[in-house]
Amino acid sequence: MRRFAAVLLIINLIVPSLALGADEAALAGYSSRSSQTEREWEAKFRAIPDPANLKEYMQRLSARPHHVGSPYDKENAEWILARFKEWGLDAHIETFDVLFPTPKVRVLEMIEPTKFTAKLEEPALAVDPTSNQKSEQLPTYNAYSIDGDVTAPLVFVNYGLPEDYEKLDRLGISVKGAIVIAKYYQSWRGVKPKVAAEHGAIGCLIYSEPKDDGYTRDNVFPLGPMRNPDGVQRGSVMDFASASPGDPLTPGIGATPGAKRLALKDAKSITKIPVLPISYGDAQPLLAALKGPMAPEEWRGSLPISYHVGPGPAKVHLKVEFNWDTKPVNDVIAKIAGSVAPDEWIIRGNHHDAWVNGAEDPLSGQAPLLEEARALGMLLKQGWKPRRTIIYAAWDGEEPMLLGSTEWVEAHADELRQHAAVYINTDGNDRGLLGMGGSHTLEQFINGVARDIEDPETKLTVWQRLQLSKIAQAKSADDRKELRQRADLRINALGSGTDFTGFLDHIGVATLDMGYGGEDEQGIYHSIYDDFYWYMHFSDYDFVYGRALSQTVGTSVMRLADAEILPFDFVDFADTIQKYTKDLEKLLADKQEEIRERNQQIDEGVFKATLDPRRPTVAPPREEIPPHLNFAPMQNAGESLTRSAEHYRQALSHKQATLSEIQIDSLRALNQQLIESERKLTNDDGLPRRPWYKHLLYAPGVYSGYGVKTVPGVREGIELKKYAEAEQEIVRVAKALEEESALIESAAKRLEH
Amino acid sequence: MRRFAAVLLIINLIVPSLALGADEAALAGYSSRSSQTEREWEAKFRAIPDPANLKEYMQRLSARPHHVGSPYDKENAEWILARFKEWGLDAHIETFDVLFPTPKVRVLEMIEPTKFTAKLEEPALAVDPTSNQKSEQLPTYNAYSIDGDVTAPLVFVNYGLPEDYEKLDRLGISVKGAIVIAKYYQSWRGVKPKVAAEHGAIGCLIYSEPKDDGYTRDNVFPLGPMRNPDGVQRGSVMDFASASPGDPLTPGIGATPGAKRLALKDAKSITKIPVLPISYGDAQPLLAALKGPMAPEEWRGSLPISYHVGPGPAKVHLKVEFNWDTKPVNDVIAKIAGSVAPDEWIIRGNHHDAWVNGAEDPLSGQAPLLEEARALGMLLKQGWKPRRTIIYAAWDGEEPMLLGSTEWVEAHADELRQHAAVYINTDGNDRGLLGMGGSHTLEQFINGVARDIEDPETKLTVWQRLQLSKIAQAKSADDRKELRQRADLRINALGSGTDFTGFLDHIGVATLDMGYGGEDEQGIYHSIYDDFYWYMHFSDYDFVYGRALSQTVGTSVMRLADAEILPFDFVDFADTIQKYTKDLEKLLADKQEEIRERNQQIDEGVFKATLDPRRPTVAPPREEIPPHLNFAPMQNAGESLTRSAEHYRQALSHKQATLSEIQIDSLRALNQQLIESERKLTNDDGLPRRPWYKHLLYAPGVYSGYGVKTVPGVREGIELKKYAEAEQEIVRVAKALEEESALIESAAKRLEH
Repeated sequence: MRRFAAVLLIINLIVPSLALGADEAALAGYSSRSSQTEREWEAKFRAIPDPANLKEYMQRLSARPHHVGSPYDKENAEWILARFKEWGLDAHIETFDVLFPTPKVRVLEMIEPTKFTAKLEEPALAVDPTSNQKSEQLPTYNAYSIDGDVTAPLVFVNYGLPEDYEKLDRLGISVKGAIVIAKYYQSWRGVKPKVAAEHGAIGCLIYSEPKDDGYTRDNVFPLGPMRNPDGVQRGSVMDFASASPGDPLTPGIGATPGAKRLALKDAKSITKIPVLPISYGDAQPLLAALKGPMAPEEWRGSLPISYHVGPGPAKVHLKVEFNWDTKPVNDVIAKIAGSVAPDEWIIRGNHHDAWVNGAEDPLSGQAPLLEEARALGMLLKQGWKPRRTIIYAAWDGEEPMLLGSTEWVEAHADELRQHAAVYINTDGNDRGLLGMGGSHTLEQFINGVARDIEDPETKLTVWQRLQLSKIAQAKSADDRKELRQRADLRINALGSGTDFTGFLDHIGVATLDMGYGGEDEQGIYHSIYDDFYWYMHFSDYDFVYGRALSQTVGTSVMRLADAEILPFDFVDFADTIQKYTKDLEKLLADKQEEIRERNQQIDEGVFKATLDPRRPTVAPPREEIPPHLNFAPMQNAGESLTRSAEHYRQALSHKQATLSEIQIDSLRALNQQLIESERKLTNDDGLPRRPWYKHLLYAPGVYSGYGVKTVPGVREGIELKKYAEAEQEIVRVAKALEEESALIESAAKRLEH
Repeated sequence: MRRFAAVLLIINLIVPSLALGADEAALAGYSSRSSQTEREWEAKFRAIPDPANLKEYMQRLSARPHHVGSPYDKENAEWILARFKEWGLDAHIETFDVLFPTPKVRVLEMIEPTKFTAKLEEPALAVDPTSNQKSEQLPTYNAYSIDGDVTAPLVFVNYGLPEDYEKLDRLGISVKGAIVIAKYYQSWRGVKPKVAAEHGAIGCLIYSEPKDDGYTRDNVFPLGPMRNPDGVQRGSVMDFASASPGDPLTPGIGATPGAKRLALKDAKSITKIPVLPISYGDAQPLLAALKGPMAPEEWRGSLPISYHVGPGPAKVHLKVEFNWDTKPVNDVIAKIAGSVAPDEWIIRGNHHDAWVNGAEDPLSGQAPLLEEARALGMLLKQGWKPRRTIIYAAWDGEEPMLLGSTEWVEAHADELRQHAAVYINTDGNDRGLLGMGGSHTLEQFINGVARDIEDPETKLTVWQRLQLSKIAQAKSADDRKELRQRADLRINALGSGTDFTGFLDHIGVATLDMGYGGEDEQGIYHSIYDDFYWYMHFSDYDFVYGRALSQTVGTSVMRLADAEILPFDFVDFADTIQKYTKDLEKLLADKQEEIRERNQQIDEGVFKATLDPRRPTVAPPREEIPPHLNFAPMQNAGESLTRSAEHYRQALSHKQATLSEIQIDSLRALNQQLIESERKLTNDDGLPRRPWYKHLLYAPGVYSGYGVKTVPGVREGIELKKYAEAEQEIVRVAKALEEESALIESAAKRLEH
């Protein structure tokens, strides 16, 4: 699913790089000899993935709609299972029973000042052979919207972010008792009804603005890749970030047959108000009927209308009712047992379910996963014996909200806490740059892999292409300097929106999330037009980036599975922690300065002076200036981390030559410490008000959804003006970091003795 | 005419302020006693202007189309003359005969891939009573376009600026042999065909993009103030900035009956290729028919289409032919002879001609001028005797390109050089903030006036409202600090686009240009809908800002005319010069850094790395890094100026108490020096390649048109990569500034003795 901003992926990538050095240097965590062997196996591996297979997998899996509970979803799971088995992997299907609502009634009409009934329908297109599978397609809707039947004046709320409501306050406009219409993107969709409800709205429409993914970006489908006037973005609006992802009736536990289930009314992650997604064809008459102030300039889209805010005179009637059914999700799990350290697991996943035919989302990532599995199966036959256990997972039910992966994680939580070393995720894949997100203890590692993969278009390494592209896009000389001089490209911190969430946020498994993209625009996300026809015309239709993804992830899996010492590194991690600490200090200082300045302007009479009596506005309220917070515990922990990280790196480097002499038991103990290093960053009590989220450094934002909040307890404390809480969280985070530092120091000492 | 950017005026204002101090302090240049008297007369003056009169003048003058050469233009001139006389002023009409082309043939059609014939017509609207005066309206056209009949593929060139063509180069697209279509705004319109022709285009269309002044900004006329799908912006495309404004056949001399005239073929300011302005209704089918690369993101507007660049497949046929007639322009000139210093002139003007009915442009400024004249007439009857001569001018022929004012300036050049102390200009006027532009020797003066005028809406002084609004809009803490601490708000440097150009740029008369605006959007500029109906619905319809303009300008005129010592101040001026010097150094340093960085990226392979083979681009060429230039002469001159300016201010301040004791002859000599202070900033040879422009500090940009270039010889030297020329210009400017400094020093010493 993933994808919450309409901007090119290129812009979103924030990635890192540390010198693996010359190709022939030993791989980190490997002795020289095993490094050589590993490189040979990896080279063999990378020669195997074949674009023709990727195409075939995608065509087969996208041939019919395959959402949760559909016949073809089940068929796909069984087909994938058969492939895993055919390729020699030990595979099975693991099924969970989850709440999955589908639409029974969907009505949207304008009743004043003129009548208009929304179409709510994506038509079949003659050129697109799967677009006419009407009987199997899910209608356009937002999953986990509550049932509702409301009639009210309409208010346009831009992207529906908290700050948009502050602007409405300045315009003197309330959404209390209103139905809001928000644009898709800029936040995860579920944030829009959540914030709307908090402000008193009774219904929420979300439309796809042509400026964001329609005609303004490129020709519309089927002439081009973008959303046409009838295209609708389906999607989940489950409030997973405040509560938890996965089955809303079994939070924290696997939705197995005997699991204790909440009553529907007690499920915390269902929306508070009814929500419906619509096309811009359906939105235009509603928006055009609004009066009231002009929308602020940056709110306006590219429909041929004047964007007013309302409220009204447009009055709309929204009615949605759902079948609140329980459906099975079928995760396909394949295993390769480790030869030396079977209790250390490298897990790799991508979902297989879609909203409709889902060629891009998720099959452009699922197909490379399958091709990796086939290739690994071939290597096994050639005698390759991975040191650790490798688990390949084709998740079901990701689209409704990470159902298959979350339930699996919750069902296997204890095992995962003990054994899971790294989880690697992918989702949709396109042409362009490698996006690298994940735990910063793996920043150096994944930079190393990226240096070994060839970009299909430029024939540079994907690392070089990424570095040079980031230089091209950098906004300041300082950023360019860092990109040129820092050994590793920084990797993105992970929020949510795809299947790593349970692993990283709930259990604390070191995680990587990858995918290629940025070169092609797309406006078919979660519509019936995300299908094989679209992919073959507008994306990676020769599947060379699909192959590159197989090569990238497969190499990562092998390199993690085969290393004597898990290739975690803590220097980049410590650097990141120090950076985050500075970011938080700046966040607070900026907020102080902003409020101080605003208060001064209120005192000076700026708001009265700028008031246009024909367009009255409301001055912002005076606010208390945020207090200074004690960041010293985090600063100290950051420095402590830097010292132990450098110590560990040095110890590992000194050990390189004699690495093969270390006893198996010592290695096991050391690797166990390394596996623990991500768990140490979690806290059993979880984050404030959301105990399911246990990672202290990474979380989806309560008001950003998929968008990450780093050091979320502290950051959201400051953002939500809970300063005392923020200060407590600094202490809690610092304590975890000090313990992490002690663990690293202990690992370093273990290496030295 | 003025108005080259669709952004709110608020954003454009860059203005200054220096402490006039408490209201009761003596006015600068006045003895305490005469200051008291002056304040009394000014207060009487400000009580006179009456919104009812302003409305009546506007309604009368806008009742019919009144462009150059039209019957109603002549009638208006005679009516204004009669009013001046009725109010007791010594007035006459001064007529010049100028080249003024009007359309004979206008054809625009798309011939491939489909047929479309542009309407080129603004329809009458039932609610708007003057919109149906079809027989008197000028058709939609661009004056001083050359005749032409061309057929070619179309290319979309964004705003048609030089940098837009650099982007086209990166896309591998040439406009050679093509017809270009450019959006209005972001540069003066005449720059668009000029740059297009320089790049080999053979025709130029200019359209009004709805994102800039159509529905995206507000409802369209007649429902709202913005441009409707048929609205067209007429306007001159004469290449005045490279050559000169005024009659193209008599550059540098008055277009009097006996003047020697160029043959039409030798006129330098006629465009090189045919040009036609069109509505977005006419533009949409053409733009929608373009293929080729998507236009860069920031080029795209809000038409419901995908903006492609072309070239073609749209192929268009453009044919324009004009009547190249000579027409009279009738300037109405009124005089109040000075009682003490009749040879020192304060001149105040606003044009009376329009493109069609012209309620906003120019009558919203012309009406306040008339009301000032009426009020001054009343004061004269009450015994007020201005010390200096006051000249009120209602210019004709401003719209085609400052014809009336330029010819008058050229015809009276010798007198003006001797006598003209200050010229004050206005043009269209709306609601909002006071825009103040002008010579920086008057920065302190006009800040003082602004402190004495009440804002009609907030009841603050217009200075306070402006200061607070600028604080609200400031982009940095440094800017806010300056706005709070600097005594004067900075005033804009003047480019062109209205009638001050001849005074300031050709003769070197210290100039002010003012107007209120920024609160109301408008999309009727230069269309038939700029009329009384529009103004009474969407602008300053109760004429309180018209009254404020009369009060502001009338107070300025009186305060300049009555001061014993002309209230020039040089401290702000010296500060401005030092700022401009730093700006130029930064311009060069930024350019060096930009080219150094780009060259490095070329060497690193950034452009190859970012190339998407499906969307091929062309890497920019390697460039020589600009040399360092010797700014020392300007730096030294700036410091010298600062010293002499402070000396003069101190000397004036010490003299305040005994000012009334200075002999008339001494005063005359001192004032003559002050008048000379702006002439010293000119050079008889003019600017490089455009000798008509003689001011060394201010000029319209060769590639920006109305937009100012400060220290134009140096700035354009750097921008156009003529570095040797820029260095010579630094010397020339520094020499003028050193002479200015010597003049100021001499004036200071004169005051002390």
